[in-house]
Amino acid sequence: MNRSTIRAAIHVAAVFAMYLSVAMLLPAAADLYFGNPDWVVFALSALFMGGLAMAVALATHGRPPQVTTRFGFLLVNLLWFTLAVAGAVPFLMSSLDLSVTDAFFESVSGITTTGSTVINGLDQAPPGILLWRSLLSFIGGLGVIALGLFLLPFLNIGGVSYFKIESSDIEDRPFERFQTFATSLIGIYTALGVACAVSYAAAGMEGFHAINHAMSTVATGGMSTHDTSFARYADNPAILWTGSIFMFIGGLPFSIMILFAVRGRLDAIRDPQIMVYACYCIVFAFAVGIYLRVSGDMPFFEAITHSTFNLISIITTAGFASDDYTLWGPFAVVCVFVATFLGGCSGSTTGGIKAYRFLILFELMMNGVRSLIYPSMVQPVRYGDRTVDEDMQRAVVLFIASFLVLWGIATILLGATGLDFVTALTGALTSLTNVGPGLGTVIGPVGNFSSLPDPAKWICSVAMLLGRLEILAVLVIFSPAFWGR
Amino acid sequence: MNRSTIRAAIHVAAVFAMYLSVAMLLPAAADLYFGNPDWVVFALSALFMGGLAMAVALATHGRPPQVTTRFGFLLVNLLWFTLAVAGAVPFLMSSLDLSVTDAFFESVSGITTTGSTVINGLDQAPPGILLWRSLLSFIGGLGVIALGLFLLPFLNIGGVSYFKIESSDIEDRPFERFQTFATSLIGIYTALGVACAVSYAAAGMEGFHAINHAMSTVATGGMSTHDTSFARYADNPAILWTGSIFMFIGGLPFSIMILFAVRGRLDAIRDPQIMVYACYCIVFAFAVGIYLRVSGDMPFFEAITHSTFNLISIITTAGFASDDYTLWGPFAVVCVFVATFLGGCSGSTTGGIKAYRFLILFELMMNGVRSLIYPSMVQPVRYGDRTVDEDMQRAVVLFIASFLVLWGIATILLGATGLDFVTALTGALTSLTNVGPGLGTVIGPVGNFSSLPDPAKWICSVAMLLGRLEILAVLVIFSPAFWGR
Repeated sequence: MNRSTIRAAIHVAAVFAMYLSVAMLLPAAADLYFGNPDWVVFALSALFMGGLAMAVALATHGRPPQVTTRFGFLLVNLLWFTLAVAGAVPFLMSSLDLSVTDAFFESVSGITTTGSTVINGLDQAPPGILLWRSLLSFIGGLGVIALGLFLLPFLNIGGVSYFKIESSDIEDRPFERFQTFATSLIGIYTALGVACAVSYAAAGMEGFHAINHAMSTVATGGMSTHDTSFARYADNPAILWTGSIFMFIGGLPFSIMILFAVRGRLDAIRDPQIMVYACYCIVFAFAVGIYLRVSGDMPFFEAITHSTFNLISIITTAGFASDDYTLWGPFAVVCVFVATFLGGCSGSTTGGIKAYRFLILFELMMNGVRSLIYPSMVQPVRYGDRTVDEDMQRAVVLFIASFLVLWGIATILLGATGLDFVTALTGALTSLTNVGPGLGTVIGPVGNFSSLPDPAKWICSVAMLLGRLEILAVLVIFSPAFWGR
Repeated sequence: MNRSTIRAAIHVAAVFAMYLSVAMLLPAAADLYFGNPDWVVFALSALFMGGLAMAVALATHGRPPQVTTRFGFLLVNLLWFTLAVAGAVPFLMSSLDLSVTDAFFESVSGITTTGSTVINGLDQAPPGILLWRSLLSFIGGLGVIALGLFLLPFLNIGGVSYFKIESSDIEDRPFERFQTFATSLIGIYTALGVACAVSYAAAGMEGFHAINHAMSTVATGGMSTHDTSFARYADNPAILWTGSIFMFIGGLPFSIMILFAVRGRLDAIRDPQIMVYACYCIVFAFAVGIYLRVSGDMPFFEAITHSTFNLISIITTAGFASDDYTLWGPFAVVCVFVATFLGGCSGSTTGGIKAYRFLILFELMMNGVRSLIYPSMVQPVRYGDRTVDEDMQRAVVLFIASFLVLWGIATILLGATGLDFVTALTGALTSLTNVGPGLGTVIGPVGNFSSLPDPAKWICSVAMLLGRLEILAVLVIFSPAFWGR
């Protein structure tokens, strides 16, 4: 690790912090429009953060960095941390009177698209604050797609990239190709957000809420403008199905849509993780829906509407809730718990373990069982019509092992802060997978994180950042080898 | 898989069932001695099972089998299943009036050294039944040590064997060597049991209870003669420390003691898993002890006595309890939960994931992080002064992955039978790791499994058998490749 690499990474992070400061003008405008004096908070935050970021950017300006693996890892960490800190400034200064801990937690929760909140009284909160939470989700979602598609695969984590394997694209003017893909990603993502907002509004949601929820839906963020999340719309199946569909789309690999937009090609749809993802969404939604119908007196359509919305919300790591599903009975609760691990596809806005890792792990397990019977036989690990190389196999195992170890550590630490077993266990889990709600009465779908002690909020914040950066990108930074020569 | 292999496996299992039938005469003698009419149950069971087993053994008599990998896997499964069924007969016929489900559950719990029970009123139960439960544990413990030392390593699961690597021992009259080792194991194991019983008695435990608890202690089984387990002896630190020490010994690899007895060598003590196992025992016992001292008003010695006993009991997968540790506060509860995964060493009586797997996994993770920074660099995975081969690495990953998948499946299934979240989650876990108690009010340290619905008991029984046979030995049987040519 040399100084020019660090300088360059700080420079890029500062530039992105400037962009984020500009984004603060949107909530300022919203507050002005609704006549809320809180607009000053956002204007000042934008000025303060923008100025600071510009100063840093100028001070660290220099030759463009050599794009190495280490630069990639350093940048990713610095970027998310910087955006989390910058995003916290308006929360800290706002009329909500949040502590530093709470402001940082809320910002991390937004930018990592987790959607856990420490704010009580969302329905009375200034519109700027609500918009800022949704915007952080929206920006975080875009960031994580870019990360998953364009950066992590090159660092050998975070999945197969359809851009990585097309060597013709890389060799032939790589930067121009990248720009095309990036522009197309922003276009598609924004178009999805607009389509979702329009659909929500058409289904009967008020304009401002439709815009906010749309941003947080396509980002599978889970930030709502209501304390009760989507329970406010529990009687409106059109809204719930709109949410389900757009959350599901948020969990798809955006490479499909980009390649279709740029090339008119649809072959990326053969990515086998899509089938796995779709299958477990359907299985969980149906299993819980049927259970809900059989065990209670809910009509079938209503049961399937709610089970689909809530299970897809958990699987895609959005974390919206249309009902207190912890009261749906033990089978529903364990399904929600297991669903919390799943996640969507690589190159999507979702967190969690993700479908492609389950697929590769399943292949590894099948091979493992076979090699117990025939020890000498070595078989390739397959992913669709391709072979998974050793680096990728190692990364999948490493991710899952690290995930479990960190889950255990975070659970013990949360227990040490005094949280009960279920809250500690599911709080650690929901933070690491960027889902949002946990189980139990405190952080369950009808609760929130406000009553947690400060140390617990910091532990959850760290876990959310770890989860968002696919764990390994953070762990690497803490290895001595990273900082050595 | 050919017929002669199946025949030979059935033959061996039947021979062992005959031995188990002979063992039934011990509880018969105990009942006779205490003047309990239940002795007839054991005499009849011995006659019935012994006769049946002998008939099967004679019918399947033939040439000794070719010792292949498949024969090994088939035998292991058949053996444990047969012993579980045979062991259930006295429970079914006894005056306790147990259902088929309960009798099978209790027998599986004994033979797998889990120690969960469905019997209420142990303190009033016939002495023969109590002795039978302890005996099943004791026999199960001996069986699993033999499995872990002499068989599983040759099937590439279950750890490094110090007998496997000494090729001189294998090549030079392997059967005689094996007999020496096996005889020495039985001697050492029995001596430990006697030493434990004498220590318990010296510390003040009544003779019959001392014998029963001793058998279940060295087997890290957890079957007690009291409904309240070791809470009966909560005020007797000598008994609790005796228990802690012998449970700890039960978690050590018996290869150390065998090699010392047979060869006078102590080099097996350098096995690195021992250090890891000792470390986490000390860390957990101390952490919880200090927490207990600080958070409550228990004197330090009492706190450390109880924390050591209960944490070692969980870590070694014994499952005795000297107190309701679920009331010790959230930190203690999460520690117990995490400790439920750990287990002792390979070649011991413990279940769970086990120290050597954590060690290899840690090495794999360190290598994985390094290879993210230097993708081309391939480094050997080390275990002490040896290199872990690919087969072993694959088996460790496969075990942990299968463990987690089965845990998830068992949790969902238990949830579907109507168990609450914590009971389903920890019931599945404690069964798979052969610990015994779970968390929550139903199956926690002061509860038992009697109130569970029948399907839940069957799910737990299957999970206990899976866990006891290191999961993979069972999964292999269900792969089509196993039954193919």
